[in-house]
Amino acid sequence: MFSGIQFSLYPMTDDFVGIILDAVSALDDRRDRLRIETDNISTLIVGPPDMLFPAMRDVFLRAARTGHHVVLSATVSRGCPGEPDDPICTGTAGAAGGIGDRDQAKALLADAPATGQPAVAQFSLYPLGADAMPNIYACIDFLKTSGVFDRSKHFCTKLAGDTGAVFAAVEASFRCFGAPDGHVTVDLTVSANSPSG
Amino acid sequence: MFSGIQFSLYPMTDDFVGIILDAVSALDDRRDRLRIETDNISTLIVGPPDMLFPAMRDVFLRAARTGHHVVLSATVSRGCPGEPDDPICTGTAGAAGGIGDRDQAKALLADAPATGQPAVAQFSLYPLGADAMPNIYACIDFLKTSGVFDRSKHFCTKLAGDTGAVFAAVEASFRCFGAPDGHVTVDLTVSANSPSG
Repeated sequence: MFSGIQFSLYPMTDDFVGIILDAVSALDDRRDRLRIETDNISTLIVGPPDMLFPAMRDVFLRAARTGHHVVLSATVSRGCPGEPDDPICTGTAGAAGGIGDRDQAKALLADAPATGQPAVAQFSLYPLGADAMPNIYACIDFLKTSGVFDRSKHFCTKLAGDTGAVFAAVEASFRCFGAPDGHVTVDLTVSANSPSG
Repeated sequence: MFSGIQFSLYPMTDDFVGIILDAVSALDDRRDRLRIETDNISTLIVGPPDMLFPAMRDVFLRAARTGHHVVLSATVSRGCPGEPDDPICTGTAGAAGGIGDRDQAKALLADAPATGQPAVAQFSLYPLGADAMPNIYACIDFLKTSGVFDRSKHFCTKLAGDTGAVFAAVEASFRCFGAPDGHVTVDLTVSANSPSG
């Protein structure tokens, strides 16, 4: 199953280039297990589902810890029938990662590291094909018990809490809802240090 | 049909608050025809489909003309069965706007204003329910003739050109592909003045 992310990091400061370049270095020790490509609008990470969110979280965390207002925006996808398969996505880690195993959603949350960095996020889960809405409703029910549920908004669900738990809740939604081999995408925004409070 | 946008504007400068507040004033003369709500992560615009993209474009344009690197990120949705209907979405303008009328896609492009402000963008179109991929492929075929097609990327299509034409191409994709009354969403990123060139 082809899986990956297009993500962008937006530090709201004159020194945005320096913060982005430093934050992306959080990926360095994973470059042998992920395919990473950057252009002038986003960075692509292709790899097994269980590696995608921790990688993205660590980039965000490194930027957030500068204290500047930073936002990460991402398009996450698995199982798109229009994408070629890639051997890098199909390692043991991905297969053991439990896509489609809904009981694993809570386990992913329980394993989330405590980072000490607060974040707010909002995201939409899109299971393409049949049964989109039942999967979306089931996911929202799960999120309400996640400990980081903030509120339902039009078109998305808002989360708030520790960065580790917030990313784990989105990862669990992406991996554990929708058909195990189905085409599922997530439209994600994560924010730290907003002056809007 | 309920339709709207959650969007955020990211000016990569220390004066990001001032630029955001000034840019959002581009909505002022439309506030009687749109429902607009802001929290600490995004601004909601609810209104007829044909008003959404021009409103968002004008906010982006005002920020881009400061010369700073600015990015707009948006989640756009129409026809979500989980949303309550709203009278503000169902005016004559929306009904006449031609959702589902694929011939209108080219007309929307032809009507795009020339702004003189270059932009790059990437977006994903998600027609929820049956026939997602045929609609996505048809949309990509249309985009290749739009004059602003840059290239296909994993999980999205990248556009480049005048800001007016770029927003018109995404609007045409959103309004004219997928079932006329179907649940269709777009995950959009638009960028101006990037130092990455």
